[in-house]
Amino acid sequence: MTATLTGEAAAPAASTDRIPVAVLGATGSVGQRFVQLLEHHPWFRLAEAVASERSSGKSYGQAVDWRLETLLPRSASAITVKGLGDPLDSRLVFSGLDSSVAGEAEEEYAGRGCVVVSNSRNHRMDADVPLLIPELNAEHLAAIEHQRARRGGRGYIVTNPNCSTMGLAMAIAPIERFCGIEQLHVTTMQAISGAGFAGVASYAILDNVIPFISGEEEKIESEPRKILGRWTGERFEDASFRISAQANRVPTIDGHLMTISFAVRERESATWERIIEAIRAFRGEPQELTLPSAPRQPIHYADESDRPQPRLDRDREHGMAVTVGRLRPCHLLDYRMVALVHNTIRGAAGAAILNAELLQARGLL
Amino acid sequence: MTATLTGEAAAPAASTDRIPVAVLGATGSVGQRFVQLLEHHPWFRLAEAVASERSSGKSYGQAVDWRLETLLPRSASAITVKGLGDPLDSRLVFSGLDSSVAGEAEEEYAGRGCVVVSNSRNHRMDADVPLLIPELNAEHLAAIEHQRARRGGRGYIVTNPNCSTMGLAMAIAPIERFCGIEQLHVTTMQAISGAGFAGVASYAILDNVIPFISGEEEKIESEPRKILGRWTGERFEDASFRISAQANRVPTIDGHLMTISFAVRERESATWERIIEAIRAFRGEPQELTLPSAPRQPIHYADESDRPQPRLDRDREHGMAVTVGRLRPCHLLDYRMVALVHNTIRGAAGAAILNAELLQARGLL
Amino acid sequence: MTATLTGEAAAPAASTDRIPVAVLGATGSVGQRFVQLLEHHPWFRLAEAVASERSSGKSYGQAVDWRLETLLPRSASAITVKGLGDPLDSRLVFSGLDSSVAGEAEEEYAGRGCVVVSNSRNHRMDADVPLLIPELNAEHLAAIEHQRARRGGRGYIVTNPNCSTMGLAMAIAPIERFCGIEQLHVTTMQAISGAGFAGVASYAILDNVIPFISGEEEKIESEPRKILGRWTGERFEDASFRISAQANRVPTIDGHLMTISFAVRERESATWERIIEAIRAFRGEPQELTLPSAPRQPIHYADESDRPQPRLDRDREHGMAVTVGRLRPCHLLDYRMVALVHNTIRGAAGAAILNAELLQARGLL
Amino acid sequence: MTATLTGEAAAPAASTDRIPVAVLGATGSVGQRFVQLLEHHPWFRLAEAVASERSSGKSYGQAVDWRLETLLPRSASAITVKGLGDPLDSRLVFSGLDSSVAGEAEEEYAGRGCVVVSNSRNHRMDADVPLLIPELNAEHLAAIEHQRARRGGRGYIVTNPNCSTMGLAMAIAPIERFCGIEQLHVTTMQAISGAGFAGVASYAILDNVIPFISGEEEKIESEPRKILGRWTGERFEDASFRISAQANRVPTIDGHLMTISFAVRERESATWERIIEAIRAFRGEPQELTLPSAPRQPIHYADESDRPQPRLDRDREHGMAVTVGRLRPCHLLDYRMVALVHNTIRGAAGAAILNAELLQARGLL
Repeated sequence: MTATLTGEAAAPAASTDRIPVAVLGATGSVGQRFVQLLEHHPWFRLAEAVASERSSGKSYGQAVDWRLETLLPRSASAITVKGLGDPLDSRLVFSGLDSSVAGEAEEEYAGRGCVVVSNSRNHRMDADVPLLIPELNAEHLAAIEHQRARRGGRGYIVTNPNCSTMGLAMAIAPIERFCGIEQLHVTTMQAISGAGFAGVASYAILDNVIPFISGEEEKIESEPRKILGRWTGERFEDASFRISAQANRVPTIDGHLMTISFAVRERESATWERIIEAIRAFRGEPQELTLPSAPRQPIHYADESDRPQPRLDRDREHGMAVTVGRLRPCHLLDYRMVALVHNTIRGAAGAAILNAELLQARGLL
Repeated sequence: MTATLTGEAAAPAASTDRIPVAVLGATGSVGQRFVQLLEHHPWFRLAEAVASERSSGKSYGQAVDWRLETLLPRSASAITVKGLGDPLDSRLVFSGLDSSVAGEAEEEYAGRGCVVVSNSRNHRMDADVPLLIPELNAEHLAAIEHQRARRGGRGYIVTNPNCSTMGLAMAIAPIERFCGIEQLHVTTMQAISGAGFAGVASYAILDNVIPFISGEEEKIESEPRKILGRWTGERFEDASFRISAQANRVPTIDGHLMTISFAVRERESATWERIIEAIRAFRGEPQELTLPSAPRQPIHYADESDRPQPRLDRDREHGMAVTVGRLRPCHLLDYRMVALVHNTIRGAAGAAILNAELLQARGLL
Repeated sequence: MTATLTGEAAAPAASTDRIPVAVLGATGSVGQRFVQLLEHHPWFRLAEAVASERSSGKSYGQAVDWRLETLLPRSASAITVKGLGDPLDSRLVFSGLDSSVAGEAEEEYAGRGCVVVSNSRNHRMDADVPLLIPELNAEHLAAIEHQRARRGGRGYIVTNPNCSTMGLAMAIAPIERFCGIEQLHVTTMQAISGAGFAGVASYAILDNVIPFISGEEEKIESEPRKILGRWTGERFEDASFRISAQANRVPTIDGHLMTISFAVRERESATWERIIEAIRAFRGEPQELTLPSAPRQPIHYADESDRPQPRLDRDREHGMAVTVGRLRPCHLLDYRMVALVHNTIRGAAGAAILNAELLQARGLL
Repeated sequence: MTATLTGEAAAPAASTDRIPVAVLGATGSVGQRFVQLLEHHPWFRLAEAVASERSSGKSYGQAVDWRLETLLPRSASAITVKGLGDPLDSRLVFSGLDSSVAGEAEEEYAGRGCVVVSNSRNHRMDADVPLLIPELNAEHLAAIEHQRARRGGRGYIVTNPNCSTMGLAMAIAPIERFCGIEQLHVTTMQAISGAGFAGVASYAILDNVIPFISGEEEKIESEPRKILGRWTGERFEDASFRISAQANRVPTIDGHLMTISFAVRERESATWERIIEAIRAFRGEPQELTLPSAPRQPIHYADESDRPQPRLDRDREHGMAVTVGRLRPCHLLDYRMVALVHNTIRGAAGAAILNAELLQARGLL
């Protein structure tokens, strides 16, 4: 399994010097992924695990109902779980909190001077909070200054997008840059892990598809516009394309697949070959900095006519690459294609860790 | 299970007088559905089963590897299987043949004077062959005269559409009639039974989605235009709307689900309430004639926010009704919605049987 | 779907005279099956629906999150839900209550004079409560007199066994009668519906098997001994065979499959042919009385080498028949075989309804 | 993914010196696993790929329909596929051939002086062919001398057991050694990958269990007795315990789970604690030699009450460890337990590679 994200670290720290980090919501599904991905991380070291009152005081090994395909890391198992709101020694805090509590808690920790790198949705659309994908909009980090000024401290919040948004934004970014995107239709087929360990009952999804995921379409329609928009120095300005999204839950375990139809601005230059070339050539700051969790090639283009497929392609580059395929003309707009993202790695915990790596490389920790 | 299609027959025949019918490709997946649905049919009686040379001469019970959820009908079991091309006593012939042999074989039987009611794709787009959905285009049966004239006999071919087309055409028909459709995007999530019993390996589809089905998108993009088009007296004229389709295979057993975004011609009148009303009020000739296999309400609109779902809604009206739900505005076109069809009943064998019922009611057998 | 259990009723009541019944736990998974199976029942009519306080006062249609493959019966939808403990007009009460509340509630209703026909486990092993399978131990109903004497009223409780027990007890009953069973090993592969709608998370069971179901092995090892034991006039005496059970949850929706190895007492007579004959010839009081929900043949023997299979065989006789197959010698004991029961019909709500039918036919209501 | 088996090699060869190997049946499901596992192997290097005539002459990349979750290794892609029977340069030959051709082909290559390390069933029970599990019966390699004498050359055949046998034999070996096993019942729940990529149709297994796998029970009942038996110097003598097996196919992708009930010879010493201790302490020659593919602990005991589970435990030690759990008393025999093996790694290609590593470490290549 893709338990470890490795790479040629831009600034590898000696293992004893690894930066201590806390994970909020450490016993949940996103929290467990954080714990798993941090096990062998070259820069960061899991030092604190924060969960609900019920778990507080127990060892992480006792508190967690570990559900991932790799064994519970022994080092994590012994950590004593803290309660939400307890003081933390770590300055870097990963949040996998449920949205019912994330809003306030993350704000509080940021207020105390922590760098909160969150996967929760609560602050994603805040006026001065970067909705960060390091390959796409590293320049949005400029908004941090505004947050610090607002709070009067060094703490701040950085978020990563919704799991489906991640796949969509990554897939269209090279095209948006190359020839501009005007509008797009997207239909998602999302894995059950996106709803957490207990989010989808088996009786609801076996031999079935559920054509509705609460709040999902709204996120997919709004988040990419912020991500691919720009920071004016004062505020975020949305990209101008429009999105229509239809979200479905399908019986796959990991990997959100989506069909996309899109119209471009500059039709002349947007040939099939050039778009694929733009996808394959796409690189960003994580690749330049060779951040530990960065995929070497952030977006893969699959030549086979029936790819990407969730089970076969979700683990590309340890789950950190997005895969695109089946680019072909659309009868109504300009092109159609298929995209895939590993929703709990690149679309959640892995995204946040890559965000933190960029912050570290930029000297923002 | 929905083994039997019953109803108040417009012209019920005494059980001993039921019309003898032959099934071509009787041992295949569509053929087995024919045999299942004919078991208790009030008008038709399975008299002949035709399969490949390998099965010829065996009893149907020996020849078939019966795979449906109901038991193999005893009456069918004893029938001696004939080889493809063998003379038939039945004038009415249902075809569930594989497309590799259907083209020629169906033509041959039609040439011998048979009425071939086919589920195969080969003759669907022929210039004088009705691509029939009795609720939608019963008037296309006028083309039969052309076929008869062409062949110089009483035989002819009538086809039903591809399983996804059936769901799409039914779902949009009331809207097309009410306010006109200009264009639509459709993404399908199709059940494995659509590929026949052995068509999709479990290793290929468990925990997976396959974003490609050979030839499927082309059918979905062309067949609805013929179906909702008109017969000029000389030829079929396509409806003018355009379709962009993306087809996916998902791990469900029966029931093709699809997301649809569409633009209408007459925006003023096309309010949300009226569209739903048009869907619910929609009836066709099978309902007027109360054909045995006709659903009382051909298109159901589901009010729940997360419906239709394949496992929960595919069996509505014995699998003969299409279910639509989630009608809501689209950010790019006018509306979005979700539709579901039972692909092996309404989308295959059940469709052909309903077609034959219409032929009988119209005196065309 | 097998929504309705029909048959030639031994004592059919005019539809207007159907006996009013109450369903306890009417919004849960077993409760919904009761409502579904009662919709067209020739003798019983759903008159009252009882659920938790949260639902009390709402219409059943509002209170229930209907999850079955058939539509919510319109007649049930309008019924006003009562709270648990509320007075009931119905004398016949079906219980699909959760075991956390069933024990006390069922006792209370029995104390008030109700006939409680329960699917819950709480009272199954009570000293004077029949654990009833009408085909197997109708004579256990004699214990009702003890209950009535104990409570000083006309009310009493009758239970049906655990869903896996039902399959096992039915499968071995003809063999036990014919040649005696000494011991048996059973390994179950149980469907997710056995745990209720939300009992098994999809993340836990997709692409997985869980080799543990809390309390299940104990029930499978004890209940069949009571069922196949005898009522002495004072108490139940267990059958003398011993059982070793291993229970597993597998990703099927309905239908518990089990492998069984067993040793018989009378080896001479226990030939392969005779055992199969005993299975096929087996009939009980429900068949003699032609009770409405009784399968014509309670135990089917499947000749095919790879049957029974959950999806293909669970619906035999509307889900009320158990199917057995693959009887063959065992290297260690005498024989091995495979058995299948529809866990939510014959193994739950359908079992209780058949129990009530027997009570009615015996004049015990 | 567990694409690579690594370890501290007992005798690591320089990467340029890796031993060239051929894979027979290289395009099939077992063959693809061989190619995947060999990609980064420290001792062996894929030099030749052999497949059917149809593929012969093509590059492996063109010939193969790659279906594993990791990308097709680039180095393998360029290899020109040879036809079965073609002369080979490699002395070490891995066979993933279908049993329809494996018997003769493996014999032929052995006759030409090749060391054939086979996963196929054909020669497993041959009188002088080791059915090898390096942790269990490395001493069986003495039979190689007999083969060489028989053939008059240096070539020979070594086989690994059936995938289910592997799990069973590993799981019971520590117990057999510690307190002797007299008899056992086993029921398997086997993953679909055990039948190859196309072996199980999705229509056959979705929402289903198939209680029959052709030839499987016979293998499970006989192979462990040879494996845990002894080589007399002249022939293999079976272990004396008896097995009764029931095999089922379930809808999991990888990982064969099985329930086991067993009786021991020495009951006094066989306490629960000691058996678990014996399981956990078990080591064999691969561990002593630290062979590259050897798991550090060949058999894991899981303490959790609901483990092992296929999806969560199959990848332990890169899929090379067997996991046992739920040891508890049996009502009929002495104990019951659950075991799991990754059927396509430890139960197939990984097993053969470990066998070859032992041959190399023993100087038998």
